[in-house]
Amino acid sequence: MHKYLSKRAKELIPYVPGEQPIGDNLIKLNTNENPYLPSPKAMDSMVNAVNRDLTKYPKPECSDLREAIANVENLPDISYVYTGNGSDEILAFCFQAFFDTDKDVLFPDITYSFYPVYCGLYGLKYKEIPLDKNLKIDFDDYKIENTGVIFPNPNAPTGEYKNLDAIEKFVSENLYKVVIVDEAYIEFGGKSAVCLIDKYPNLLVVRTLSKSHSLAGLRLGYAMGQPHLIDGIIRVKNSFNSYTCDTIAQAGATQSILDVKYKDETCKKIIKTRESTEKRLRKMGFNMPNSKTNFLFITHLQYDAKFIFDTLRENNILVRYFSKPERINQYLRMSIGTDEQMDIVIDILKDIVTKR
Amino acid sequence: MHKYLSKRAKELIPYVPGEQPIGDNLIKLNTNENPYLPSPKAMDSMVNAVNRDLTKYPKPECSDLREAIANVENLPDISYVYTGNGSDEILAFCFQAFFDTDKDVLFPDITYSFYPVYCGLYGLKYKEIPLDKNLKIDFDDYKIENTGVIFPNPNAPTGEYKNLDAIEKFVSENLYKVVIVDEAYIEFGGKSAVCLIDKYPNLLVVRTLSKSHSLAGLRLGYAMGQPHLIDGIIRVKNSFNSYTCDTIAQAGATQSILDVKYKDETCKKIIKTRESTEKRLRKMGFNMPNSKTNFLFITHLQYDAKFIFDTLRENNILVRYFSKPERINQYLRMSIGTDEQMDIVIDILKDIVTKR
Repeated sequence: MHKYLSKRAKELIPYVPGEQPIGDNLIKLNTNENPYLPSPKAMDSMVNAVNRDLTKYPKPECSDLREAIANVENLPDISYVYTGNGSDEILAFCFQAFFDTDKDVLFPDITYSFYPVYCGLYGLKYKEIPLDKNLKIDFDDYKIENTGVIFPNPNAPTGEYKNLDAIEKFVSENLYKVVIVDEAYIEFGGKSAVCLIDKYPNLLVVRTLSKSHSLAGLRLGYAMGQPHLIDGIIRVKNSFNSYTCDTIAQAGATQSILDVKYKDETCKKIIKTRESTEKRLRKMGFNMPNSKTNFLFITHLQYDAKFIFDTLRENNILVRYFSKPERINQYLRMSIGTDEQMDIVIDILKDIVTKR
Repeated sequence: MHKYLSKRAKELIPYVPGEQPIGDNLIKLNTNENPYLPSPKAMDSMVNAVNRDLTKYPKPECSDLREAIANVENLPDISYVYTGNGSDEILAFCFQAFFDTDKDVLFPDITYSFYPVYCGLYGLKYKEIPLDKNLKIDFDDYKIENTGVIFPNPNAPTGEYKNLDAIEKFVSENLYKVVIVDEAYIEFGGKSAVCLIDKYPNLLVVRTLSKSHSLAGLRLGYAMGQPHLIDGIIRVKNSFNSYTCDTIAQAGATQSILDVKYKDETCKKIIKTRESTEKRLRKMGFNMPNSKTNFLFITHLQYDAKFIFDTLRENNILVRYFSKPERINQYLRMSIGTDEQMDIVIDILKDIVTKR
């Protein structure tokens, strides 16, 4: 490590995102991208945003976009909404805005692996709470001192979903610290906690346009909560970068959010494909937690996960394999593509599990 | 301040950017934007980037864009280049990557007012080194213990430029700590320190496409330095947000960087307008430091700066007034627009300084 780095930077263990290979002959099911095009209205608005306004700084408040989100989500006004350069950036701001160094941040042991990285970046302590033996979050295990709690709902990479009653019960029990519900995958069959925001001053809900809105390339996420929480994120953002969302991204995201019908249709298609894929996989001896996401977290009773991963890769199919923690090293996370893509994948998996 | 905020967040004093008013009948000379359109090649490439690739995450390494910058700047390869979501984001990463809490970060007392904000965000100590009586940086004053040094060249809001010999002498004298030269305005007549990178392992040069490339709306900045410094920034970035530059921004920025001829032409036009504006202002009793930027930092011997600011505002002309520090509260920072815009501004200023 080089002498010019700060002490903190030397100690960092950065996040490693899923591979982004170049080449079109690959079925890419490793980063939970959406196989369907973004809303045509969003596409048009981005093309139209390539104009003279690019010479000026973007709207620092992202007011049109926040207004669109407030409307679609039935929130009182834009003071309940924050938008940022991907939900990753928003989560980073939240860790700094709401969590202190004196107590642990709590999150599941098997979850989005960026959470411990943020803790490293800001010198926060954390405790990873083990999922139960069925790979589910048990909120009883979170009833300990903390400086805040974060979990995805549905959880990733398991796909497991907690219902609204369970979420509300937990948020009400951790009332003095912020609870962040990371709803990256909520549009694939779950019920959002947004309806609880009015009632709970400690609830923050974070979303992304990367999955449900087919806009992973645009880097746009948003957070919803009572205005004092949104203000906290804005304070950090304005101490970091005045303008985090560029003009074209604001335009595209606004129209994408407003085109609820298109988003609902594409999400429904993905849910249908997920359900049929799940059935076919179970018949082939695969097991998996119930998924309310655009991916399946699959394991096979006889075949080694790394072997299946490598064989798929040889056949130009990319899924995600996590060697750690050990408890999930026999699982693969496979994004849901189109029906045609899943047919190809299923055929190759059939070859794998019937050989030998 | 709300109880849900972290201790750090409560203490933050965020940066306040220049006003971004809505409405077309305003001559906006308050945030040093470029009045000329971005490169037509950049515009085309952004329109073309609105396609199916948006469903996928952007290239995390920004390799095409970094390659373009390395080529244009005569650097060996992309390991010498980092690109981020505006130079503000890059500067934030640098403060975290290179500066420690044990000693002071050094920067001028009159400079980009985001620097002390970054220190607040990361708990860094800093010392503001006063400009000399002519509002110039005196590097002799920086020969004290430090954890790193940052200054813009040319400086903002003064516009004053240090020549390459002075920069090299200072960088060579502070060899054990990183020196960041913030070259947001270098293309308006200065000579870049990039040619020194090969020689100095502690030199980092930061740029933006917001001013010289007319792309303030796109949020694209870049840093250049030896690979160990670039690695340091990447470590922090990968602990914060895997993808900070979206697909469309990468496409537009790449073509904008490669269109050197167009950039040179627009910058030359601005320099010419700056020089003629300066002459006319001096005739009217205004004084100002020499500028190698796209703005002038003007003061009038008889007329109060705040009065001039307000009168310009009433006439739909927006410039920047800094009430603090006191030493510059009789100055206005005025961006250079088109010749036509400057004609209108000069006419109104004439009215102001001949009235009484």
